[in-house]
Amino acid sequence: MLVVHKYGGTSVGDLDRIENVANRVAKAREAGNDIVVVVSAMSGETNKLIGYAEHFTSTPAKKELDMLLSSGERVTAALLSIALQSKGFDAVAMTGRQAGIVTDDTHTYARIETIDPTAMHNAIDEGKVVVVAGFQGINKDGSVTTLGRGGSDLSAVALAGALKADQCEIYSDVDGIYTTDPRIEPNAKKLDTISYDEMLELSSLGAKVLQNRSVELAKKLGVKLYAKSSFSDNEGTLISEENDNMEEVLVSGVVLDKNQARVTLRGVSDRPGIAAEIFTKLASENINVDIIIQNVGTDGATNLGFTVPQSEHENAKKVMAGFDHDIEGMDFDEHVCKVSVVGVGMKSHSGVAATAFRVLADNNINIQMISTSEIKVSMVIDEKYGELAIRTLHEAYELDK
Amino acid sequence: MLVVHKYGGTSVGDLDRIENVANRVAKAREAGNDIVVVVSAMSGETNKLIGYAEHFTSTPAKKELDMLLSSGERVTAALLSIALQSKGFDAVAMTGRQAGIVTDDTHTYARIETIDPTAMHNAIDEGKVVVVAGFQGINKDGSVTTLGRGGSDLSAVALAGALKADQCEIYSDVDGIYTTDPRIEPNAKKLDTISYDEMLELSSLGAKVLQNRSVELAKKLGVKLYAKSSFSDNEGTLISEENDNMEEVLVSGVVLDKNQARVTLRGVSDRPGIAAEIFTKLASENINVDIIIQNVGTDGATNLGFTVPQSEHENAKKVMAGFDHDIEGMDFDEHVCKVSVVGVGMKSHSGVAATAFRVLADNNINIQMISTSEIKVSMVIDEKYGELAIRTLHEAYELDK
Repeated sequence: MLVVHKYGGTSVGDLDRIENVANRVAKAREAGNDIVVVVSAMSGETNKLIGYAEHFTSTPAKKELDMLLSSGERVTAALLSIALQSKGFDAVAMTGRQAGIVTDDTHTYARIETIDPTAMHNAIDEGKVVVVAGFQGINKDGSVTTLGRGGSDLSAVALAGALKADQCEIYSDVDGIYTTDPRIEPNAKKLDTISYDEMLELSSLGAKVLQNRSVELAKKLGVKLYAKSSFSDNEGTLISEENDNMEEVLVSGVVLDKNQARVTLRGVSDRPGIAAEIFTKLASENINVDIIIQNVGTDGATNLGFTVPQSEHENAKKVMAGFDHDIEGMDFDEHVCKVSVVGVGMKSHSGVAATAFRVLADNNINIQMISTSEIKVSMVIDEKYGELAIRTLHEAYELDK
Repeated sequence: MLVVHKYGGTSVGDLDRIENVANRVAKAREAGNDIVVVVSAMSGETNKLIGYAEHFTSTPAKKELDMLLSSGERVTAALLSIALQSKGFDAVAMTGRQAGIVTDDTHTYARIETIDPTAMHNAIDEGKVVVVAGFQGINKDGSVTTLGRGGSDLSAVALAGALKADQCEIYSDVDGIYTTDPRIEPNAKKLDTISYDEMLELSSLGAKVLQNRSVELAKKLGVKLYAKSSFSDNEGTLISEENDNMEEVLVSGVVLDKNQARVTLRGVSDRPGIAAEIFTKLASENINVDIIIQNVGTDGATNLGFTVPQSEHENAKKVMAGFDHDIEGMDFDEHVCKVSVVGVGMKSHSGVAATAFRVLADNNINIQMISTSEIKVSMVIDEKYGELAIRTLHEAYELDK
C-alpha cells in the first residue's frame, strides 16, 4: 500500500517531535507500506521568518517572501530524512521542486498546476521513504512559490493524487474530526467517517483540522483522507466519498463560528442591480461576506441581511455609508455568532432544521438569520448564547451517543 | 561598472546588520554600478542546523545535509532583497539554482561545473540588484549541493567570472589583508595590493580572510578581488595579478601558524619507495601533511621530517608505529609552530631568506625545519617563540613603514 503522511508544525515542533514522527513513519514502513511524508515547518518558524521580513517593511515582495518562507519546510524535510536514516531506513528528502510540483505565478498563494511524480516513484521503487518539503513548488520560470495557509495539507493531497496513493493521512495535534468542539461540549465524540462535503461545511464553519482547499482537492482527486493525531495511536477520522452508511446518520456535527458580525439593511430601494452594487463594492474592499439573506418586507420594500467577519465590521460600516441614499435604515451588530448543523443525512430526512429551531426556541434563543444548504442549517444568534446553543443542539441530535 | 559584493555571516549576523548591508549596496547602486550581491547564512545559523542534524546521528547523509544547510543562505538572500526593496531599490533574490550554478555530485564539497548567467543578466538589464544565496548550487540531477567551507566566497568569485564583472568585493569583519596578524604585532599595516600567489601563500598559512579555493578561482578566472570590511569605509586590499609595482616590495607579510606538530624520522631505511609508503598511509588516514623535508644524514641513512596539524599528532604517531622496523628513531613534537615570510619580491631579490635566519638567530630562536618556495620562506620553530619571531621579522622587513 502506498500511503502519504503529512505532519503539521506542532507535530514537528522540535527535534524530539521530529524523532517521534520518524518512529511513526518507521512503523508504517515496517508494516510493509511505501511511504511519502510531507512536512510543515517547525512550529513558530514561519512566523519568525515573517517577523524578520516585517522588520524591513510591512509589505515585503511576495516573490522574496516565498523564497524566505519555503526554507522552513526544507529544514524539516532534511531533518526527518536524517532521523529516518539514523534508524536504518533508506530515505530521501525532496523540495517541492524536486518532488515535481509546478504551480502558477501567484506568489504566497500559488495553485498547483502539474505534478510530475517520476522522481518520487523512482525513489519509492528503490525502497526509499520520500520526505517532501510541503507548502511549496516552483512556477514555470523556476521561481519558488508557496501555496498559502494550510499549504502543506494541499501538497500532501496533491501528491497523493499524483502518486495514486491508497490513502493520505493528515497528522496534527488532534485525533480526528469531532461532532463539535470538545472545549464547548465535553461529550463531543470523534467521528469514524465523514463525507468530503460535510467536512467542507465543517471546516468552512470553523473546524480547523483540515483546510477547505485540501478537502476540495481530495474530493476532486478522490483521495481517501485520514485526520489523525501524531501524539496518539487512535484511529482518526476517514474523510471520503459519501456512502449509504453515512446517510443513516442524520447529523454529523454542530459548529460554532464566533467570528461573525451582522449587517441588516431595511427598505433597500428597488433600483435593479442595487444588491450587486453593494456586494461588488464589499468584495473590492476585500470584505468576505458569508451568509446573505434577502426577502421582501411587508410594505414591498426589500430587506437585505448579511454577515461579515468581526474584524471587517468597521470597514463594512464605511462601505455601507456610501449607500445611505438607497437604504432606509441600517443595523449593525458585531455581537452575533453562527451555529451550524451539518449532516449528509439531511438530504433524505426532513425535520432536521425544525428540530434546531425548536431546540433554540425552547432555550429562549432568538434566531436572527437562517441560511440552509442541502447538508447544512446555519443560524445567526446573539453571541452570548453560542456555547449554550451548541450544547443543546449536540444533545438534541444525540451526537454524544 | 558591474560589481559583485559578497557579505559573510558576521556582516549579515542580525537584522540590523542586514539593514547595514542594504545601505552599503544601495550606496554602490546609487553610484551608478550594476550590483550582484552574494550572501552567507546569518552567523550561527549553519552551526545551529548542523547541531540539529547531529541530534539524530553523528554522520548525517551529505545529500540531506546540503538541503538543510542551503536554507540559511536563502533566508539571508530573501531578507536582503526585501531590505533593498524597502529602500526603493528594485531587487530580486535568487537561489544558487536560479543564478544558474551547476555543480558536480560531491555533496557538502561540490565543485562548480558551469554557470549560466542568463537569468542574472536579464535581471541586471531590467535595472535590478541581484541577491544570490551563496554556498550552493544544484547538480545535474537537480539535487541541492553546497560548496564546502568558505563556499559563499567561491560563489561570489565564480559568479563574477561568469558575469565578466569588473570586480568582486569580499566583505567581512576585517578591512583587508595585513602584513601580519594585528593581535600579535600592533604595528601591522593593511596592504593596498597583493598578488593572487601571495594571497594563496598567506591564506594557506593561516590568514583567514579569504579561502584558498576562492583565490585560486579568482586567479584562474582573472577576477579582481577586493577584501573589505562591511563595518567601515576603508579602502580594503586589492588582490590581483602580480605587477611590476608589487615586485618592488620585498616582503608582503609574515604569518604565524600555531596548528603544527613535527615528526622527525632518523635513519629511514633506503628501501626504494619507503617515503611514498609513509605518505600514502598518512593520506589514507586523512592526515594532512604540510612541510616535508628529506636529506641524507652523515652516515648515508636518510632523515625525513614533516609537519601535521596538532589535532592529527596522535594519529600520526599511530601510523608511524607501523613503520618502526624501517626507521631507526622517531621524534615527535607538538609544541612547534610555523612562521612564514611571503612576498613576490623574493623572486627578484636574494637575501630575503638569509635575513629571516639571521633575525631568528639574533633572538636565539632555533630553526628546526626550513621550507621555501619561489615567494615564501617557512620556518618551524619552538611554539613559545612564535609571536616573538613574527614581531622581529615584521620589524626586520620594515613592514610597519
